[in-house]
Amino acid sequence: MEQHLITDIVITPVAFRDLPLLNTVGVHETYALRAIVEIVTDSGVTGVGETYGDAPHLARLQLAARSLIGVDVFSIGVMRLRIIEALRGDTTVGGHGMSGMVTGSSTPDRVLSPFDVAALDIQGKVVGRPVSDLLGGAVRSEVAFSGYLFYKWAGHPGQADDAWGAAIDPAGIVAQAQRMVTDFGFSALKLKGGVFEPEEEVEAILALRKAFPGHPLRLDPNAAWTVPTSVRVGQALDGVLEYLEDPTPGLAGMAAVRREVPMPLATNMCVVSFDDVAPAVAAGSVDVILSDHHFWGGLRRSQALAGITETFDLGLSMHSNSHLGISLAAMVHLASATPNLDYACDTHWPWKDAAEDVIVPGALGFENGSVRVPTLPGLGVELDRDALARLHEQYLACGLRNRDDTGYMQRIQPDYELVSPRW
Amino acid sequence: MEQHLITDIVITPVAFRDLPLLNTVGVHETYALRAIVEIVTDSGVTGVGETYGDAPHLARLQLAARSLIGVDVFSIGVMRLRIIEALRGDTTVGGHGMSGMVTGSSTPDRVLSPFDVAALDIQGKVVGRPVSDLLGGAVRSEVAFSGYLFYKWAGHPGQADDAWGAAIDPAGIVAQAQRMVTDFGFSALKLKGGVFEPEEEVEAILALRKAFPGHPLRLDPNAAWTVPTSVRVGQALDGVLEYLEDPTPGLAGMAAVRREVPMPLATNMCVVSFDDVAPAVAAGSVDVILSDHHFWGGLRRSQALAGITETFDLGLSMHSNSHLGISLAAMVHLASATPNLDYACDTHWPWKDAAEDVIVPGALGFENGSVRVPTLPGLGVELDRDALARLHEQYLACGLRNRDDTGYMQRIQPDYELVSPRW
Ligand SMILES: [Mg+2]
Ligand SMILES: [Mg+2]
Repeated sequence: MEQHLITDIVITPVAFRDLPLLNTVGVHETYALRAIVEIVTDSGVTGVGETYGDAPHLARLQLAARSLIGVDVFSIGVMRLRIIEALRGDTTVGGHGMSGMVTGSSTPDRVLSPFDVAALDIQGKVVGRPVSDLLGGAVRSEVAFSGYLFYKWAGHPGQADDAWGAAIDPAGIVAQAQRMVTDFGFSALKLKGGVFEPEEEVEAILALRKAFPGHPLRLDPNAAWTVPTSVRVGQALDGVLEYLEDPTPGLAGMAAVRREVPMPLATNMCVVSFDDVAPAVAAGSVDVILSDHHFWGGLRRSQALAGITETFDLGLSMHSNSHLGISLAAMVHLASATPNLDYACDTHWPWKDAAEDVIVPGALGFENGSVRVPTLPGLGVELDRDALARLHEQYLACGLRNRDDTGYMQRIQPDYELVSPRW
Repeated sequence: MEQHLITDIVITPVAFRDLPLLNTVGVHETYALRAIVEIVTDSGVTGVGETYGDAPHLARLQLAARSLIGVDVFSIGVMRLRIIEALRGDTTVGGHGMSGMVTGSSTPDRVLSPFDVAALDIQGKVVGRPVSDLLGGAVRSEVAFSGYLFYKWAGHPGQADDAWGAAIDPAGIVAQAQRMVTDFGFSALKLKGGVFEPEEEVEAILALRKAFPGHPLRLDPNAAWTVPTSVRVGQALDGVLEYLEDPTPGLAGMAAVRREVPMPLATNMCVVSFDDVAPAVAAGSVDVILSDHHFWGGLRRSQALAGITETFDLGLSMHSNSHLGISLAAMVHLASATPNLDYACDTHWPWKDAAEDVIVPGALGFENGSVRVPTLPGLGVELDRDALARLHEQYLACGLRNRDDTGYMQRIQPDYELVSPRW
């Protein structure tokens, strides 16, 4: 049996331009950070993964990488045990990649994720099959995504307006949605809320409903609301939302809201690790879990989550952070091979400058809101080393080392306070 | 991308000699039935799976097989959807392979199982890796099994005594255990109970404890007891059993027992499909699920079950029926790649005539109670076509078409009655 032993792992932090997208903890900075993980084997095959670029996470990735040298890329179970062991002494904090909005995810699973993806990329290349085939095979040839709408400023303070311009009211959101639907063909829409008074955001959703009568709609205030506010909003949007995402913090709060509102409740905040599942099921906190292979331990463990949600009659959707093409490819393979992941997945893709990525262009594209599942061996994307070098230079030059939506907002508006729940 | 499309599926029922092993529904007949499933692809690669040989199950396998022609063997998800569709109109009953002891398993999962195994066997051969590597990689190089003790007659009525002789009291069980430990090296022991009065079986367990002070012990009466009897036995065996398996029928009964006995409760009777898991968790019915890829939908879905038990803090062990070498290979690959499957697995292997199998001898052997995980591509076992033909002839000649422990017992003891719970 020919083995494919890991001989080297290269972790490259990168930065790509981001837009002033607003959320309940602040605003996206001028650059988003990611880390690109390359695994090299003794057989000369390489594979890639993508993850958060926050400094503490980078340090943990390095620690983990050292523990993986000599492991066969087919031994993902062993990789996981090595990483758990390697992180046992780690006492660093933070670096969850989500600016404080999601903090309870499993550190070993978060660290394992890009190595799992890179190992599967190599496995696929070695065996001549797409990653989806290593996950049980695609049950759909394309994966549907939702159009992810954000309140935003016209541009970063001190910079020219960006191409999307401002969206700070219902009309701005509807205009943004119209452009997004025109450009990408999305047939579902999600609004990132928690930015303005709940009533204003209800108005935005109702304006979207009027403008897009056939599009499933979602609203995600990132737990910015109390239980009573959440119930009020949920009841006001009866019949309008496909699901309401994380209206309020915590399993108990979500369960209280869920008893009083008519629509399904979804989460990527109160159920973010395997440890959260049993308490959430016991409390009846949620209807839909938004999976995310970046914090659920990679693609194989995300499929374990899918088995859990199917077994416990929970819906399964997919969460997104600002990301590049490697992550998009991984998301598409995973979703294609997960029969019960049948909601349109979230993606920040439209907010990324199309010219900025670390992969050779052309492998992934949107048509009617969907991405065709790559059929080339592995992930089906190729690292563009010049582009990688450029985005790494950008990382070095930009000076950002951690995602900090709150700090950026406070530099712009010194009286800005982090309050949770805000309303 | 080279595909490996299914062009033909051959299903061969076989029979192999079995011994008069007693259980609470009767006694094993003179032959055990299995079905061998061979998948052939357009690339000329073949793979094998093994499942129950009961007539209604064989008919469903044929129905399912027709739906799989043209499917790529890497598309196990598609295979599953095709089988669910193919079985939609099926109204046949029975054929669960377990003589009425386990009836609630999922028909699609039971039917999918051998095709999943055969497809993974082909995948492994095509990519040059053992099946364990397609399941995330082995985390152990050998898999431990338990010595599975049965009350038994000296031989089938009207036949000469078999090589094991009688075991109808504590001394007989201890003698059987001694031989099994000597021959196979098992370091855990399980007694199939539900045959004699509970007090007699308690005596047998206490005799085993005395003779094997270091061996974890298990007792499985196949739900032969009422709740009060189960509680009495459980309390009498405090500190003696590793786990008590299916003392009483049903989730509610098991939960009632579990509240009153000190040891973990295990099951392969009240949680036998994904539909049973959520009610079992809610009721607090069990501590350990005995997985069985033959009714949990094959190896990939059994790994989903493993993810569930890990997430819900349940133990995971493995159930066995009378089986041949293909099933043993599949069980070993699965267990090796499932980190939390860390109990010694059950197997009926010692009860099978070593000369009777459908695989070329030598691929699998016991040492210190464990089987080394095959490292050849695929399952690592090779179909012996002469042996297959012989066991198929034996199937045709023996006349048995369904496992029927109760009917056989009633032919021998006309006043035998099926009673549940019996004590
Ligand atoms: Mg969210
Ligand atoms: Mg049992």
